[in-house]
Amino acid sequence: MNCCDIINKTKRNIKLSSDEIKWLVTEYTVGNIPDYQISAWLMAVCLNSLTDEETFQLTDSMMKSGDILDLSSINGITVDKHSTGGVGDKTSLIIGPVAAACGVYVPKMSGRGLGHTGGTIDKLESITGYRTELPFDEFISIVNKTGFSIVSQSGHLCPADKKLYALRNASGTVDSIPLICASIMSKKLAMNADCILLDVKYGSGAFMKTKADAQKLADIMTAVGGMSGKKCSAMVTDMNVPLGRNIGNALEVKEAVEILQGKKKGSLYELCIELSAEMLRLADKGTTEECAEMCRNAVSSGKALEILAETISLHGGDFKITEDVSRLAQPLYSHTVYADKSGKINKMDSEEIGMTSLILGAGRATKADSVDMSAGIVLEKEINDTVEKGEPLLTLYSSTVSDFSSAEQRILNAVKIE
Amino acid sequence: MNCCDIINKTKRNIKLSSDEIKWLVTEYTVGNIPDYQISAWLMAVCLNSLTDEETFQLTDSMMKSGDILDLSSINGITVDKHSTGGVGDKTSLIIGPVAAACGVYVPKMSGRGLGHTGGTIDKLESITGYRTELPFDEFISIVNKTGFSIVSQSGHLCPADKKLYALRNASGTVDSIPLICASIMSKKLAMNADCILLDVKYGSGAFMKTKADAQKLADIMTAVGGMSGKKCSAMVTDMNVPLGRNIGNALEVKEAVEILQGKKKGSLYELCIELSAEMLRLADKGTTEECAEMCRNAVSSGKALEILAETISLHGGDFKITEDVSRLAQPLYSHTVYADKSGKINKMDSEEIGMTSLILGAGRATKADSVDMSAGIVLEKEINDTVEKGEPLLTLYSSTVSDFSSAEQRILNAVKIE
Repeated sequence: MNCCDIINKTKRNIKLSSDEIKWLVTEYTVGNIPDYQISAWLMAVCLNSLTDEETFQLTDSMMKSGDILDLSSINGITVDKHSTGGVGDKTSLIIGPVAAACGVYVPKMSGRGLGHTGGTIDKLESITGYRTELPFDEFISIVNKTGFSIVSQSGHLCPADKKLYALRNASGTVDSIPLICASIMSKKLAMNADCILLDVKYGSGAFMKTKADAQKLADIMTAVGGMSGKKCSAMVTDMNVPLGRNIGNALEVKEAVEILQGKKKGSLYELCIELSAEMLRLADKGTTEECAEMCRNAVSSGKALEILAETISLHGGDFKITEDVSRLAQPLYSHTVYADKSGKINKMDSEEIGMTSLILGAGRATKADSVDMSAGIVLEKEINDTVEKGEPLLTLYSSTVSDFSSAEQRILNAVKIE
Repeated sequence: MNCCDIINKTKRNIKLSSDEIKWLVTEYTVGNIPDYQISAWLMAVCLNSLTDEETFQLTDSMMKSGDILDLSSINGITVDKHSTGGVGDKTSLIIGPVAAACGVYVPKMSGRGLGHTGGTIDKLESITGYRTELPFDEFISIVNKTGFSIVSQSGHLCPADKKLYALRNASGTVDSIPLICASIMSKKLAMNADCILLDVKYGSGAFMKTKADAQKLADIMTAVGGMSGKKCSAMVTDMNVPLGRNIGNALEVKEAVEILQGKKKGSLYELCIELSAEMLRLADKGTTEECAEMCRNAVSSGKALEILAETISLHGGDFKITEDVSRLAQPLYSHTVYADKSGKINKMDSEEIGMTSLILGAGRATKADSVDMSAGIVLEKEINDTVEKGEPLLTLYSSTVSDFSSAEQRILNAVKIE
């Protein structure tokens, strides 16, 4: 096969055969095809898209470029969940224990944060002692004991995706629905749970800016999951405003614990019940309503919080944070921002809030940056709340930044009162 | 500036500024931008095109990446001519002397052949002793003496085009009208003649498969030439059938000499009169009709042939070939193909005929191949001629291939009798 022929086909909207796609992925992964050919092909995909069948073949070839996890020693049905990434998204820390409390197994691998979005692994590392890298057998053993574990992604999964993702980032070929689908689904399918729930975000803080695009991505990911023999469904959710009130690693663990303690209700709690209920429904545990009821009970009974504590403990982490959140990393500095006028809050822009938390030290601008676990933002108000002039709007936290002027300037662009 | 931002603009159909295009070309040429970013951008150009203004800026930046020839010591108005390449296209060898005989100066730089199309430099090298590489001063001195010289392209012209052309070839990004325009015109503008005539070919043997695409390319090239302050015009001509009857290096020189000797008329002669008349018209030598009359006289008087002989002589070549074409490289082997039925010839496919001459040794499959100067094809009939069964259709020549079976098989696909 010849790479230019393949590039020209996609350029001319001619469908590729499964052999051609497999050849492209395999030869690129081992280094037989140069970056400059693949980046040209990726651009052709960005502009001409791929058929569903081609997207499945691409995903499948990328999945098969590395290891596929063997979860057969887990004692029951396994459910994975993936969010396309957002600001303040700590749902994995909540719904994993909730779903496990209802009898499914949640063996989860997560990544680190980059740019304005956080990563679950960073959040977990804000718990003193929590080991995110475990031998595979220990990971499986924890899942069998508590029903739930999160570790960081293994180095042997989807080497094709690693190479392609880096090239897409460097060649302006990120925003393509088939390419995003293949990148996410190849990893999810290599992780090999029986059921996969996808939380596809849209809006300011998300990859997909419109609900229609998020729905398209959800549809193709669900289709590819189905073609691969998995039970797969997707929820399309709003990321125009941050999820919950806390943004930043330790602050988000704190909020997750507060939700599981039953102390906090509201939109984040409701979303978590919806997501975990859908995980149970995928695993044939009942109707949506029955599953939601089971999930609410898992919180109110304290069962889910217990599972979180036990999992943290088995990971070597300070499980007492589930009783006393003040044991989490505490910031050295804080700064409260007050409303400069009275009115209704009609904008709380996720992306700008995420970028502010980055300035405070809570995230990474580049992969090599280190993270301030205590840094972040607590929103004192939510969208559509009314505020009086002089009331606290939000508080900024950091242990590395003591001058909050640039962070305050940035966040005032994100919040609008009218 | 950031390369991904520029790539994303073209991907999203947002016009680039002249500074952005200049930066892209300059930084790529010196090696500060990697191939994989430029190939992604090239693909975005292939699929989204560029505006005329962007195409001009790209051409201009590529032209300025290297030397620009100083033709100011030539004693009169200079006219360059460029063909987009075809099969049997020996027009440069004819119209250069004809135009020079009518009082304009034709300082021409040409390239070598690749694939199914020939190159003027290869054709000239079939003349014993002809030096295609001359010091610049000697080149100018010949042009001042005879009005006409052809040398091979200097290494200092358009390094940006050299790099981009190689990358386009290797990344499936060749067929884009703005990119083809920028590649051709950057070189033509760096050669810096006062007037430029473009012969834009369409059909089977040409880059542009349709007349409409050839017209588009002609329009943008003429516009870019005008924006650069040159007198520039284009003719769109048919390449579905080869130009003239001889294909192959020495064979084409022979046919060019026969045209200038006044021995051969027909479609090739007419096209050459048309092209050289347009060169004179661009140089303000008269109306199209007056210029055509001057050109016909240049042939019939023998003046053009005299100029060809003198130019060959000044290049160190065997100028006596202009009197006796049997002094050109003679093939060791030949094979005549006869009509297998009676009828009218309704197809003589240029590309297939060009590929057959490649098989015979007349061309290069890759840049490193050597060329058999004597090899090629002489068509005994033209398109629309009627033939009787058993009449000679064409003759194949070679000094390197003595078994003509595969060449015959190939050329029988190219010629159809009905």
